Amino acid sequence: MSDHPLIRLSRKPALLVAGLMSGTSADGIDACLAEIREGDRGPVPRLIAHRTFDHDPELRALLLELGEVRAGGVPGPDRVEWVARANVALGEALGRAVRDIAAAAAVPLSSVDLIGSHGQTIRHLPAAGAIGALASRATLQIGEAAVIRELTGVPVVADFRVRDVAAGGLGAPLVPHVDRLLLSQPGKRRAAQNLGGIGNVTYLPDPSTSESLVAFDTGPANMVIDAVVRRITQGRETYDRDGARAARGTPARDLVEQIVAADAYHARKPPKTLGREEYGVAFVEDFVARCDARALSEDDRVATATWLTARATAESYRRWVLPRGLDELFVSGGGALNPTLLAMLAEAMPGVDVKTSAACGIPPLAKEALAFAVLAYELVHARPSNCPEATGAREPVVLGKLTL
Amino acid sequence: MSDHPLIRLSRKPALLVAGLMSGTSADGIDACLAEIREGDRGPVPRLIAHRTFDHDPELRALLLELGEVRAGGVPGPDRVEWVARANVALGEALGRAVRDIAAAAAVPLSSVDLIGSHGQTIRHLPAAGAIGALASRATLQIGEAAVIRELTGVPVVADFRVRDVAAGGLGAPLVPHVDRLLLSQPGKRRAAQNLGGIGNVTYLPDPSTSESLVAFDTGPANMVIDAVVRRITQGRETYDRDGARAARGTPARDLVEQIVAADAYHARKPPKTLGREEYGVAFVEDFVARCDARALSEDDRVATATWLTARATAESYRRWVLPRGLDELFVSGGGALNPTLLAMLAEAMPGVDVKTSAACGIPPLAKEALAFAVLAYELVHARPSNCPEATGAREPVVLGKLTL
Repeated sequence: MSDHPLIRLSRKPALLVAGLMSGTSADGIDACLAEIREGDRGPVPRLIAHRTFDHDPELRALLLELGEVRAGGVPGPDRVEWVARANVALGEALGRAVRDIAAAAAVPLSSVDLIGSHGQTIRHLPAAGAIGALASRATLQIGEAAVIRELTGVPVVADFRVRDVAAGGLGAPLVPHVDRLLLSQPGKRRAAQNLGGIGNVTYLPDPSTSESLVAFDTGPANMVIDAVVRRITQGRETYDRDGARAARGTPARDLVEQIVAADAYHARKPPKTLGREEYGVAFVEDFVARCDARALSEDDRVATATWLTARATAESYRRWVLPRGLDELFVSGGGALNPTLLAMLAEAMPGVDVKTSAACGIPPLAKEALAFAVLAYELVHARPSNCPEATGAREPVVLGKLTL
Repeated sequence: MSDHPLIRLSRKPALLVAGLMSGTSADGIDACLAEIREGDRGPVPRLIAHRTFDHDPELRALLLELGEVRAGGVPGPDRVEWVARANVALGEALGRAVRDIAAAAAVPLSSVDLIGSHGQTIRHLPAAGAIGALASRATLQIGEAAVIRELTGVPVVADFRVRDVAAGGLGAPLVPHVDRLLLSQPGKRRAAQNLGGIGNVTYLPDPSTSESLVAFDTGPANMVIDAVVRRITQGRETYDRDGARAARGTPARDLVEQIVAADAYHARKPPKTLGREEYGVAFVEDFVARCDARALSEDDRVATATWLTARATAESYRRWVLPRGLDELFVSGGGALNPTLLAMLAEAMPGVDVKTSAACGIPPLAKEALAFAVLAYELVHARPSNCPEATGAREPVVLGKLTL
């Protein structure tokens, strides 16, 4: 009975855990390897390695297609078959990413104890649908855990969001639990801002007070910038490397103010969440049409999209974060590698000390992957890992499903 | 640490387990409650209660729609959203079924230790697809475990098939492991025939010999009969109750011989598996057209579809079972409640003793649900539960995913 793998894992003083994240922009897989020990306040992770693996272009196209809403009548494949096959194809890519990061870190795969995999969100529908059986609130992540398990020989925890949705929550954000473990510090009021496809913030009040955590999606982050760069370059470039295009351009600030003012999302009280849908094809078409109307140059368009990200984020903070007081802001995600965006963020939030998560020891591209390694570790110990104050769930619940 | 629910479960001498099955015909949920003890050869289940819960018509229509292949261009909803919402809607129905069967058995929900849920197969694609990332072999069951867990408070094991597919297998049949536990007996050569939407057999050789188990899908079972009854009655009836229509009619035996002879599936060597697709809309259209050409009466059509099931099953046995010797045949599934079908089966297999699984203590409608209760129990003990000789998998693997 003590041979039971979960019993063995729950008794080890430290686990070697791989974390896997495939973000809304479907660029690739952020993978990390971390040692996680049991501390006084729960898990204490130490990052060993992290790396980003680009998706095969065919898989990326498949994931992006599934992420778009397509009513019937549009020519295309049987999308139910696509969901089934893409689930496995992404699982294969995720399994290879674990093998590759272990090899890169010179760690034998057999010494990896556990994998935590977020997978790819292809629908996030935390609000009730229109009719009958379709009314059920839902979220759907793919990236088959059984395939990862077979390719690695390592137990996998995956499919974290749906349990929070089942418990009445929005299923997002899930990183706040880990932000609290990593960043919460007496005497400090801190925020962790992730800039992936969508932006999200975790506000951590001074833990010596009784104030509660706040976390929510802040608006578009890299999604709109990436989409604009892809259109300008006919897909040759997929993002604004080092923010170079935005740095050369001049943002159309009044256009951005119009868009931010028109976005009813900002006024909604947290907890609240966004899907890829909100800033997808339709949003970008409208953005481009407005840039066309002003005959903006290519660089100006990228600068405008970048300023939009900064301003949307700042607008979220103005309403829901800054009134509570903020000492430090740690930025992570792909957007943290864009110095033009960071500078614009600092400009849009005067008085806030904006730095990347590297300042607290977490490389910006490793944080989300590390978070899902920690959530997997929590399941091994049968501990809840959602933050009801962030998701709106009825209660704390154990997130994820275990494949032995 | 000993508070860990899985550790607690793996130490209990007996578990109270609910089993849930939602078959390919999407009529409803077969639910059972069983006490499972640890015996010398593994789990020993004792059935406590079983019951079938009809699906809400709207949910049933949704599940049937998702089960059909629809290329793009056909008017309809966003099918990815349907997959996401149907997954949750079915999870809600499954969770209610557990609550209802516990209530019916006068067992407090809090004393149920574990739930094993098969879910609904909406795609079964164990063969590689045509191109690139779409080539991945796959299977897709829905019926969200996290929702079942929230509605019941009981840990859930679900999503059993995909691990076997990931291990190189067909992902079906999975019941043979349980058939062996329940039926294998020294000195006897037995077969367990399930007649659900699709038929499948587990052949259990005399365990005192070194012969190996054979298991495979045998062909259409209730799917074609049900579809014909639904067409005749414009959907007012969904199956041939007590086989009454078939008993009044006369089967067109030569037509059935043509169909069986033309079905290349029978000649394929096991392991082999079938999906809903093979005997779906296209097959039934063809069947009806041939009945039209002969101007068959309504009852004759149902009799012909019933004889087709009997003959297809017998043809499978003639090729792959009878040459090895067979003493007893136990029929389970909805088809076991159709006396006309049972009589036709006996006629099509002269010399074989055809009885229902009730003869060995298992009510025909409870067997599949009981099987998934047993598979869930096996995961709690971290034991493999696929039969590689039945699925073609590379090796025995632990099936299912655990939601705590």
